[in-house]
Order: sequence, then structure tokens, then C-alpha cells
Amino acid sequence: MRATLDFLLYDWLDAAALNGRPRFAEHSRETFDAVLDACERLARERFAPYNRLSDTEEPRFDGERVHLPQATHEAMRAYVESGMLAAAHDYELGGMQLPCVVEMAARSFFSAASVSMSGYAMLTQGNANLLLAHGSPRQKQVFARNELAGRWFGTMCLSEPQAGSSLSDIATRAIPDGDDHAADPLGPRYRLKGHKMWISAGEHELSENIIHLVLAKIPGPDGRTIPGVKGISLFIVPKHLVDAEGRLTGERNDVALAGLNHKLGFRGTTNTLLNFGEGRYPVRGQAGAIGYLVGAPGQGLACMFHMMNEARIGVGLGATMLGYAGYLAALEYARQRPQGRPVGPGGKDPAQPQVPIIEHADVRRMLLAQKAYCEGALALELYCARLVDEQRTGTPQAADDARLLLEVLTPIAKSWPSEWCLEANSLAIQVLGGSGYTRDFPVEQYWRDNRLNMIHEGTHGIQALDLLGRKVVMEGGKGLALLAGRIRDAVARAAQLPALAGCAQALGEALERLEQATRAAWSSGDPVVALANATPYMQAFGHVVLAWIWLDVATCATRGEPDDFRRGKLAAARYFFRYELPKIGPWLAVVESRDTTCLEMQTTWF
Amino acid sequence: MRATLDFLLYDWLDAAALNGRPRFAEHSRETFDAVLDACERLARERFAPYNRLSDTEEPRFDGERVHLPQATHEAMRAYVESGMLAAAHDYELGGMQLPCVVEMAARSFFSAASVSMSGYAMLTQGNANLLLAHGSPRQKQVFARNELAGRWFGTMCLSEPQAGSSLSDIATRAIPDGDDHAADPLGPRYRLKGHKMWISAGEHELSENIIHLVLAKIPGPDGRTIPGVKGISLFIVPKHLVDAEGRLTGERNDVALAGLNHKLGFRGTTNTLLNFGEGRYPVRGQAGAIGYLVGAPGQGLACMFHMMNEARIGVGLGATMLGYAGYLAALEYARQRPQGRPVGPGGKDPAQPQVPIIEHADVRRMLLAQKAYCEGALALELYCARLVDEQRTGTPQAADDARLLLEVLTPIAKSWPSEWCLEANSLAIQVLGGSGYTRDFPVEQYWRDNRLNMIHEGTHGIQALDLLGRKVVMEGGKGLALLAGRIRDAVARAAQLPALAGCAQALGEALERLEQATRAAWSSGDPVVALANATPYMQAFGHVVLAWIWLDVATCATRGEPDDFRRGKLAAARYFFRYELPKIGPWLAVVESRDTTCLEMQTTWF
Repeated sequence: MRATLDFLLYDWLDAAALNGRPRFAEHSRETFDAVLDACERLARERFAPYNRLSDTEEPRFDGERVHLPQATHEAMRAYVESGMLAAAHDYELGGMQLPCVVEMAARSFFSAASVSMSGYAMLTQGNANLLLAHGSPRQKQVFARNELAGRWFGTMCLSEPQAGSSLSDIATRAIPDGDDHAADPLGPRYRLKGHKMWISAGEHELSENIIHLVLAKIPGPDGRTIPGVKGISLFIVPKHLVDAEGRLTGERNDVALAGLNHKLGFRGTTNTLLNFGEGRYPVRGQAGAIGYLVGAPGQGLACMFHMMNEARIGVGLGATMLGYAGYLAALEYARQRPQGRPVGPGGKDPAQPQVPIIEHADVRRMLLAQKAYCEGALALELYCARLVDEQRTGTPQAADDARLLLEVLTPIAKSWPSEWCLEANSLAIQVLGGSGYTRDFPVEQYWRDNRLNMIHEGTHGIQALDLLGRKVVMEGGKGLALLAGRIRDAVARAAQLPALAGCAQALGEALERLEQATRAAWSSGDPVVALANATPYMQAFGHVVLAWIWLDVATCATRGEPDDFRRGKLAAARYFFRYELPKIGPWLAVVESRDTTCLEMQTTWF
Repeated sequence: MRATLDFLLYDWLDAAALNGRPRFAEHSRETFDAVLDACERLARERFAPYNRLSDTEEPRFDGERVHLPQATHEAMRAYVESGMLAAAHDYELGGMQLPCVVEMAARSFFSAASVSMSGYAMLTQGNANLLLAHGSPRQKQVFARNELAGRWFGTMCLSEPQAGSSLSDIATRAIPDGDDHAADPLGPRYRLKGHKMWISAGEHELSENIIHLVLAKIPGPDGRTIPGVKGISLFIVPKHLVDAEGRLTGERNDVALAGLNHKLGFRGTTNTLLNFGEGRYPVRGQAGAIGYLVGAPGQGLACMFHMMNEARIGVGLGATMLGYAGYLAALEYARQRPQGRPVGPGGKDPAQPQVPIIEHADVRRMLLAQKAYCEGALALELYCARLVDEQRTGTPQAADDARLLLEVLTPIAKSWPSEWCLEANSLAIQVLGGSGYTRDFPVEQYWRDNRLNMIHEGTHGIQALDLLGRKVVMEGGKGLALLAGRIRDAVARAAQLPALAGCAQALGEALERLEQATRAAWSSGDPVVALANATPYMQAFGHVVLAWIWLDVATCATRGEPDDFRRGKLAAARYFFRYELPKIGPWLAVVESRDTTCLEMQTTWF
């Protein structure tokens, strides 16, 4: 995995060249490698050995406290001490000014070692990043800095029992807290009341405090809230109240754990139902959780999307690395497990010794599929992180292009690994056979853990609506055009190489069909019809994007000596073009024809 | 589910007409319905309520005994008392002479209610059926009858730790037991020594005795065994020894539980590693498990395949009903869960109440996919059971055709539901969203349970080799030609119907492409090349078979009043033809081109 990571970072994305930019001037490949080495070791020593334990010793609530394995406490302390929470941030914020692409590469080790234990860190970083983007100077100073320092951890509180995908229906209310509410140094102070569901890391004792970022509605003078997402505002709601200097005041805020969710997987991260402001912990004599407004009233969802987009790429990385961890386990098993014999001219000779199962074509097929899914997905996630660096440190034009590309690619970066690296996990189980179905091997846990990723941070269906309903049509379709341009550039480069010319042509044709299908979907102008097949559209879009990534990675692999490593990359690319890209045909067929089978299906016909 | 079962049984397969045959003369739709009613009730009352318990109270071994939930004991007693173990057998064997197709319909209730609890019954029936086909009169009398009566339960012991898919490598040995070994009334008596892995129902206290059917090799005079499958013989090895009248002698046989496997799912069925003949329970003063030869020496695998083929269709039914149970749970949830709103001309109106999620096209797509997968698979399994009836009670020509069709269809009946009804379970989780990912709802367990089905009774890869390497070429390709004839008959019938003419044409073309791909795969004559893409071939073959099944079911649904039920069947068929059948294109492309990507991939390139 490290060799692939290095290849993608340095050979493909030329991350070392980033130190030519002022922000990264003090960095070099040596400092990047030092970070990667340290994270690889930390993940191997403090996370991976306890990943199974985080599953079997599921979080437990005794009515007062949530208990997690001691190993999780120790892993998170070690992570905090590594400084990785602030790695990509400014020196003045205690950060390392690491490029995002290097930070993501470093993160990948933790996701592979224990996706659910590292969940606490990812949420905390996302939370702090949001506050750095939208918080007041004081909010940044008090909340974001203490999060980046690992003193406090963070959450994002969007869903409610009656409002999951439909955020416009949230019912948590925020009322100004007293006459002096506007004068609080931590931000306009409100009292929140409501229930938040599916809150990851919503309760634990891994950190001194938990900083909830909560969506709620502020009622108007008539006591009514504005229907829809326009009425949503964003609040900082700490579990323990703090003063303007970030010191705990000793007051417990009125946020209570109603219960833990008992999940199929991903059990190392607590998942909670939280009651805000029910009076379980009255503050200053009254019920209502104290919260501080972030940004302007009614702008909550826009602010939250800053965190959501980052979280979506984070979900994609987590899904990718679960797949990757399974692939490596399957590869190791396939190399060692003897079973069966090759068919010779006279059939099989049972007198010969058995061969390792990796010798069988069907096992290689399953391993190649995993390699193509997981290495391709990793390349995509790193590409997205590289775009974030471009957005922050590129020329104005490059930065704006990067922003637009990220808009278009985010639903793919989230959905594609969630679907296909889950499939990789299933193939890893299959390679191990009966052993893969037991809890003596890690692959079944990866598969269970990974099943969450098509659900949280916006379901698969929501990503598809975002892609076809918004991203490919926004700004007059500029984002899609930009992406198509990048793809055509890659096609033109690869077309020059004899080994890749066929793939280049196939990708060029696939792209044209995708563009045509996009137009066909919207040709009636009716969003109901256009979006009825949004999911197959997204699946095809994702496969085209991954074909592009593989073509470009393979182009890079043709440079330098053709060693085993590079031949493997070319074989995976070839696999993707032969076995995967053609799948876009059936998906796009229903998009192009605006198939109405699902639309016309009646509830009573099921 | 019952309405669909009735429709498939009576409208589509015309099961009621079977009472025109002598074997079923005492039956009628009334007696069939009475059996179905009883089984539906028994499954609902005694199995379904305890399915979660069978998962959370996993089998536990205290060093002496294996503990299962009391509910499992009670459910199995109730099942035994229902007489269903012998339902399809002769009256003189204590059976009901029920047609297999009706018996399978009855079984489906138990698979849907608790696939792992009902596993004990399926194994026992399969074991008894094998003995009835290949055992001596005394073996039938003693072992098969007591199994059909539910006094004793059965297992099949094939795999060993070093020999899973490669049965030619089994190392369990059987040595004649004493000079009088040939004179034992229960069959030639041997002493067995070896280890058997992945043995389902290998230990429990649900029945008075456990009858293991064990594959082992008899060494020659030089003490060596014949390499390969030719050297394999089959033995009856009871856990507790019995006399020639079937009475327990009070002697424990030398079969010891080495340990339980701890699985991802399917936990209600114990899965074991058994040590045969290690001396843990010496018999008559010496180590070695007593076993009675079934059939001729060296014919063990052929005999076992009788049970295996039946077990494979049983696995297919289990996979199907897990998918079906998930579909029903998702359907119920989708009808009740309010979330989101339809897009109107002016976008969404948040002031309107939320709608049940079944109103969203993407949710309908996921439900339609589940319906198409599970109802289609159920129809296929019933069709196979109907072929068994034909094989037993049809004219000689019809019986032989049925045998051949079953040969070709068995790998599909096993593999297709294992893959696609697992996908249905994943879609059920997706419909439920976060709730689906919790253990508060049944769908996550169905998904875990179903993941076993691509592994046991011959993995997916093994089924694919069986299909392309053996079944479609055996007897000069007669089986495939016969199937193609049936498909063309269905196409011709449907082509007359305006509503189905398009589907009929699509199936006709798909069949031609499949036949062409079959020839292309074998065109080089080299099995290594032909079989390199056996799995994609099987996937395409399965989709063609299911398209045929759906076309024929839809043809049947066009008869009679077009009510909601029939419209649903037509919509599911349409879904299958629009969204699923086109997937054969990418699968067959690599078969037709004899793609060598996987063959050429080198171990060192991964």
C-alpha cells in the first residue's frame, strides 16, 4: 500500500512540487515522508491491533457514562499527540501547513487500520475546519483551536428522528437566551430544544469536552419557524460550558444522551440519539441547551455544507481504505492458501501438489477487481485532496477551476468507493471462502463497516440527485465541461501510447455517451423525469471518472522502467477498461431513454 | 408473499394438475393448500419470532455440550411433529407423497422465517434422500427412516481443513474394522480417522442422534490411497452407535467436536470442526470412528452429489427467501416512513406534509429491483422443483429432459439468488437508511446470513466452472439446447402479446448471444482459456435464465383480469428487461473475446 501511495503522490500527482508554493515552502518530500512514516507506524501500532476489539467491545451506556475500550482512549491520545488533527492548518493555529493531499495520504493509514476508531478524529477536524471558515474570531480561538489541539472533540448534528434526508423538516428550535443574548463573547446565545438522531461521536469520554455543531430553526416573532431549509441556522453547543477564554466553567450543558444505536458495523464510533434542552441538565436554573450562533441566521445549511463536503470526501476515503485493507488481507491469504491444481492438457493431475489459490484465474479476477476498485478510488480521493490544495494555493483561475471540479466530483468521491469498495470487501470474503465468513479473519468486519458508507453523509440516492440535479447543470454546466476537458486531455496523452491507445479511445467514447445522456436526461426539462434514473446515471458517471483516473495513472506508469509494480498498475487499468467500463452501457440506456418503469410503478402493485 | 406463491404454483406451474398422476392421486389443491397454510402458520409462530435470538444467542460449546436457544429446540420439535421432513416421500416411508414443488413452496416459509434454524431440517432431509437413493435396504430402514421421522438429524461431511473446494485432497482414511467387517448388517464396517471442517449441524442436542455422511478414502493393500476423487468413498457415521433395528446401543462413536466456527451470520446453524477417530471416545477399546460404507468403494463423490445437487437448490431457495424477507421488510417500512416531498413545477413546497418514501422514484427503483430479484428467483426454484417432479413422475422422455435441464439449471439455481438476493438485502438496508444499519430491524441480519450462500455447497467460482466446463458441453451440449428450446417456446408465446413483444425479442437476442458466447469460449479448445471467464459467463447465463422466467411469468400474468397484483408482476418483468438483462453485454464481451487479462496477471504484479 505504501508503494502505491508514494507512486500516486509523487509520480502521478507530483506532490513534491508543491513546496514551490509559499504556503508549503518549508516542506519537501523529506518532511512529507516523515509524516507518512510516523502515521503509518502509529496506525500499525495503536489502531490496527485493536480494530476487532472496537467491534466486539461495542460502546456501552450505563445510564450515566459511555464506556469504550481502553485501547480506543490510548489510540486517540496518541493521535492527538502526533499533531495530525491540525496538520494541514496554519503554523499560527498550531498546524504544520501540510498540503491536503499529503494529509489525506497520512489519514489513509488510520482509515485502513481502524475506520471507526479514527472516526472521532475525522469529525473533530471537519468541525474545526467549519468553524475556521464560518466562525467569529472568538469562536475560532476558543472552539476550533481547542479541537485542533485535541483537547475537545467535535460532532455534526443534522438528522432528527423525523428528518433524515429531508433536512427542511428539522424541528429543533433555538430561542434567544435572555436580553443580553446578543452580547455573549462566544456568539449570539440561544437556548436549543430538540432531538438529534444518528449523531456519531455524540457521547464519549475520549476528550475533555464535546463540541456539537447543531442545525436548528429560530422562530420568528409569531413563534413560527420558516418552512424549508431557508429557516435553518447553525449553533455551537458544547457538552460542557466554557468561558470566553476556553476554560470549562464547571457547568454541564443541557445535552443528554437518550441512547446508543446498535449497529451492524462501524461500532468503534459511538452513534447516538441526543436530547437537547429537555431539562436533564438544567443550565442556570432552566431547561434548554446553550448554543452560540455561527454565521448569520438562516445560513446554517450553507455553513454546514462546508463540513458535509469535506465529510463526504472523508467517507469516500474511509470506504476506499476499508476496501484496501480487505484487498491486502485477501492477497496475503491467496498467496499462502494451497487449494486445487491447474488444468493441464490431460486434465488435473491429483498426484501433483496443490497450488496457492492465487494461481487460479477466477481468484486473480477477484483480486484484480479489488485492486482496480481500491487503488482507483484511492487515486480519486487523493486527486480531490490535490484540488483542495489548488483551491487554496493556486492561481485565481486554477483555484476556481478546482472549486468547480470539486463540486462535480464530490458526489462521486463519496458514492463510488461506498459502492465498489464494499463490493471489494465482498470479493475479499469470497477469496477467503469459509474462513472469510468467520470472525477469525478481518474481512467480514470490513464488509460490515463499509456498508454504512452508502448511508451516512447523504445516502446514495441523495448523492445521485445532487450530481444530476445540481452539479452537472450548475453554472450552465461549467463544472461538467471542465471535467470533460480534463478527461479529454488525459485521453489525448494516452492516445500517443501504444499500450493505452485502445483504452483512450474507449474512454473518449464513454465520455461522449455520458455527455449525451446528461442532455437526454434533461431534454424534457421535467426534473421528475430527469431525476427518475439519477442513481444509474451516477453509477455510470462514477465508472467514467474512474476510467479516466485509471487511464491517467496508467499513463504515468508507462514512464520509467517497466517493473512488476508498474505492470500491476497497467494490468489493473486494463481490467477496469475490459470488465468495468462497459457496465456504463446498461446504466446509461435507462437514462437516455428516460425510462419511466420506476416512476410509473404504483404503491399498490408491489 | 403467499399470493405470489399461489400464483406461481397454481397459475404459472399448474401444480394442481399433478394430481392427475398416480403418485399424487390422493392430492388436490385443497390438500396442497392445507400443507401451505400449516407451514405458513408454523413458520410465523415458531420460527420468525426467534430468528434474531438465534443470532444473538450464538451456539456455545462448554467443552462437553453445545448450547442452543430453547426456542430452536422447540421450533425443531414442532417442525418434526408437522411431518414435513418426510412430506415428499412415499406413504410407506411415513411420507405424504407431496409433489416436490409443493414441498418447496412449503419450505420457503421456513427459509424466510429463519434460514439458519431451518438448516437442520434441510440437511436431515438431504441426508435421508441420499440414503434412500444409494443406501442398502437396511441403511434406508435404520438411518433414513429415523431421519425422516425426525428422531435423528443428519449432516454432510465433505470439506477438511486442507481440502475445501478441492475434494480430491481429502485425507480422512477408512480401514476395515475387524475380520467380520463385511458382515455387519448396517453395511461394511470401517474405522475412520480424519478431520472435517465447516460441518453444519455437526453437533447439537436437538435430536437423539446425529447421522454424519462422511467422505473418506480406503487405502489399498500397500496402505496408500488413490489420488484424486476416484479414491473417495462414502460412509454413514452416527454420533451414537445403533443396532440393526435402529436402537441406540449406548455406545458413543469416536466423533468429537474440535470447535465451533464463529460466523458473520447464519448463526442459528452450528458450524463445526469435527475430529473423527482421534480416540476421544474410543469404541470397543480402540480409537477410530465406526462408519458403514454406502454404495460401492470409490463411488462416494457420485453418491454425495445426489445430496449436493439437492442442497444447491436448497441453498438457492434459502438465498431467495432471505432476499424476500428483506424485501417485505423494506416494503413495509417504505409505505410507512414519511420523508421528503415530490418535486413540483416550482420545486419542493416545504409547507406540504412529507410523503411516504415509497413515493420517491429511487425508492421504487430499489423495491422493484428487490421484487424482480426475489420473486424471479422464487419462480426459478419452484421451476426446478417442478422438474424434480417431472423426473420422478413424467413420461420417460419428459423425465430425461427434466434431468438434463436440472443439470444445467442447478448452478444457476444456486448461484443466482446467492448473488442477487444478497444484493436485494443490501437494497433493503438502503431503503431503511440508518435504521437498516441497526440491529433494531431485521434487514442487516438477512444480509449477513445471505453472504454465506455464495460460499457453501460449492463457491460461486466452482458453480461457474461446473456450468461452463461441464453442464453446457455435456452430452454434446444437449442440456443447453434443451434449455434454449424452452426459452424459444416462451419467446414465441410472449411475442404474440403486445405488452411483451419487445421483451420477447430482447430475450431471443440475448439467448443467441449467449449461445454464441458459449461457442466462442470453447473455440480454442483450451479449457484454461475457455474457463478464465467462467464467472462472468455464469452471471450472464443467470440473467438470461431469469429473463426467461420473468417473461414466462409475465405471460401468465396477462391472463385474467388486470388487477394490481398482475400489474405488479408485469412491472417487475419490465424492470428486469430494462435494468437487468442489458447487463449481460459487458459480461459476455469478455467471454466472447476470451479476455486474458486475469490469466496473464502475475502474482508479483499485485
